[in-house]
Order: sequence, then C-alpha cells, then structure tokens
Amino acid sequence: MAERYLRTMPPSVAVLRIGHRLVRDDRTTTHAVLVSRAMGSEVIYMTDVDDEIKKTLDKVNKRWGGENEFRLEIIDNWKKVLKTWKENGGIVIHLTMYGAPINQKIREIKGLGQKILVVIGAEKVPKEVYFLADYNIAIGSQPHSEIAALAIFLDRIFEGNQFNKSFLNERMKIIPSERGKNVIQRNQDYSSNRNSNYSLPKRNQNKDS
Amino acid sequence: MAERYLRTMPPSVAVLRIGHRLVRDDRTTTHAVLVSRAMGSEVIYMTDVDDEIKKTLDKVNKRWGGENEFRLEIIDNWKKVLKTWKENGGIVIHLTMYGAPINQKIREIKGLGQKILVVIGAEKVPKEVYFLADYNIAIGSQPHSEIAALAIFLDRIFEGNQFNKSFLNERMKIIPSERGKNVIQRNQDYSSNRNSNYSLPKRNQNKDS
Repeated sequence: MAERYLRTMPPSVAVLRIGHRLVRDDRTTTHAVLVSRAMGSEVIYMTDVDDEIKKTLDKVNKRWGGENEFRLEIIDNWKKVLKTWKENGGIVIHLTMYGAPINQKIREIKGLGQKILVVIGAEKVPKEVYFLADYNIAIGSQPHSEIAALAIFLDRIFEGNQFNKSFLNERMKIIPSERGKNVIQRNQDYSSNRNSNYSLPKRNQNKDS
Repeated sequence: MAERYLRTMPPSVAVLRIGHRLVRDDRTTTHAVLVSRAMGSEVIYMTDVDDEIKKTLDKVNKRWGGENEFRLEIIDNWKKVLKTWKENGGIVIHLTMYGAPINQKIREIKGLGQKILVVIGAEKVPKEVYFLADYNIAIGSQPHSEIAALAIFLDRIFEGNQFNKSFLNERMKIIPSERGKNVIQRNQDYSSNRNSNYSLPKRNQNKDS
C-alpha cells in the first residue's frame, strides 16, 4: 500500500501559513496544522506559533503516528522560505478566492510533477504573495476558510490517495467502521494489539471525532 | 451554466453542526458556516450560536450575494432535525474519522440521489449520532478538522460544480485572476459595473483573502 501511495504522490508537498493572530486564531491554526498532517503534506511552516499548538501536534503524532513524517517548523521570514523553495525547483501555489479556478488549473499543476509549496493566509496576506507565487488558485471565488481551501487542494492534488497513507509508530489506529468506533491500541509490539470496540476511556472516546 | 450546474446537483444538501463551545469555537464555527454557504449547501442548522456569527454571515451575504440561497438556522434539538430529515426521505451522513472511507462510499451515496443532511461535530458528538446516521463516513481516519471534512465531502458530492454557482444580488463579484485582485462592484444595475483592479479601499483589500 505504501509503495502504491508513493507512486501516485507528487514528490513533496509543504504548507506555508502566513499570519497568525494570537488567541483568536489558535483553533483554526491547529486545524490548519492537522489538515496538513492528515492530507499528505510533509511540513507546515509558520510564524508566531503558540506553544499549545506544538503540544497538540506532538500529542497527535504520539497517539496517531507520524513523528518523523510530518513536522511543524517555526520560521522568521516567510519570504525567504518561499524564495528558497523556488530556487530549489519547487513551485509555489497561493490559495486565494481571487485566483484562477482550481477546476481549470489542477490538471496543469499536477502535470508539472514538481514539489509544491501551498501558501495559505490567516486573514491578511501581503500583496507581494500574489506576485511571488507561481499560481494564485481559487478554491471557489466566495469567502470561506483557508482550512477548507487547503483540504480541497490537497485532496485534488493527491486524488484521495492521501487517505491510504499509514503513519508509523502510532499507538492507536482506527479500523474504519460503519457504526461506532473501532480502535486498535498498539502496545510494545504489533502482535499484542487488542481490538477494542468502544473500549476507550470515556475521556478519549469523542475527543477526535 | 446555472442549468448545467443544477442538473449535476443532488436535490438538496443541508449541514447540521452539533456542539459549539462559546468563544473557543467562534472562529471555527464561522468557517463551518461559510464553507457550507460557499460549497453548495442551502442551510446550516446549529445550536448555541453567538450573535457575531450571524452578523458575519449577514455581511457576507450582503456583500457576496445569496441572502435567499443560504441560511443559518438556530435549533434547540438536533435530534429532531435529524429525525425529521429522515422522515422526509432524506439521508443523514455523519462525518467522523471512525467511519467508512469516503473513497469507498462516495459513489454509492451519490447514486442514491437523495437529499443529504451532513452532520459534523465541534468536538464532542453523542454516541447516538453514529446510530441515527445512515452513513458514518471518514474523510481519512486521522484527526484533523470538521471544516476540512465538510469541504472535501461537499467537493466530492458536487464534483467541483459548486464553484460554478453564482449567488444572486451580490454587491461585489470576483473575476478570477492569475495575479492580484479583480473585483466588480455592482451598483444599482448591472450596466453600471466598474471593473476595479486593486481599487478597493485598503481596509477591505485583504479581508477575505
């Protein structure tokens, strides 16, 4: 499965989130981080990140795997990250409601087969970003959510294959289920798995639903 | 375009968001509302909504159109909404990381051609929801974001056609652009449109980007 996954993946996708207004954006920032992790990106670059968010990601990585597969990197200078990315042969896709329609551009972008840096903004994005990006892409031309835009973009890029990815070293793993919750808890070694249907401590049961 | 859009749309999609923890969830709740609006849903049902969120939606509807095409409805009893939906021949899809994979189920769901109520939770979802829903669907089995899950689900249901929808009575309309921002401001009648490239007041320029 892992091999099939890699063959259908572009070489590498990173996310750059510009702007974060402390407190007010904490929850949405966490969502942006977790979407990046869950949907096939390898790294999210951010400025001004609250410690809480790093802690949340650490907890998720420990519980659901992927400590060495996805990371949050704090940066000082978003412009430098963006320019370095381009110098190294990657392309930069800025998601904005003002851009060209995703439906028209996705095939072209995938056809390039290049490393992709996806740029999203909290609310304010400097005008420069529009000109430094290789593509300004609209996930619809109505205001909604950079989290939604990022999710749809990654789903389109990976064609749903991001959901086949398994993270390594997880303590808990979900077995998809038509009803209720089916979670395997991994202990020291895989052979000691126990298949627990609704056996999680009450406190954890709904936490990530 | 509108006609083509309607032919590819299921009859009707509504969103039910369960749970909202005041203050902490304000921003993510706003995102859920705007995603529902922008991605083809007709209504979002919610409990305990802050006035700020209704105001934000009113502002967006006034500016970008759709006052009569999308609404936020405050409800007391989510269970009643869900049951009434089913009694009226609609199906209920609960989005949860514990559910059956979207990649496996989307074709079947679309094939039903029924009205869809999409249920998402803030964090806590009562166990009952898993059993009242017709489908529990996982947008990946990793924790991320109900906003992202909703967005991907609607994008898959509408196959991207939700982005072709035009909202009525908008004051401003974006003309997709490869660089910068191209916004038409509609005055009393359409003939008086003026095509403004970066001519919005500074205050508004980046607001919805």
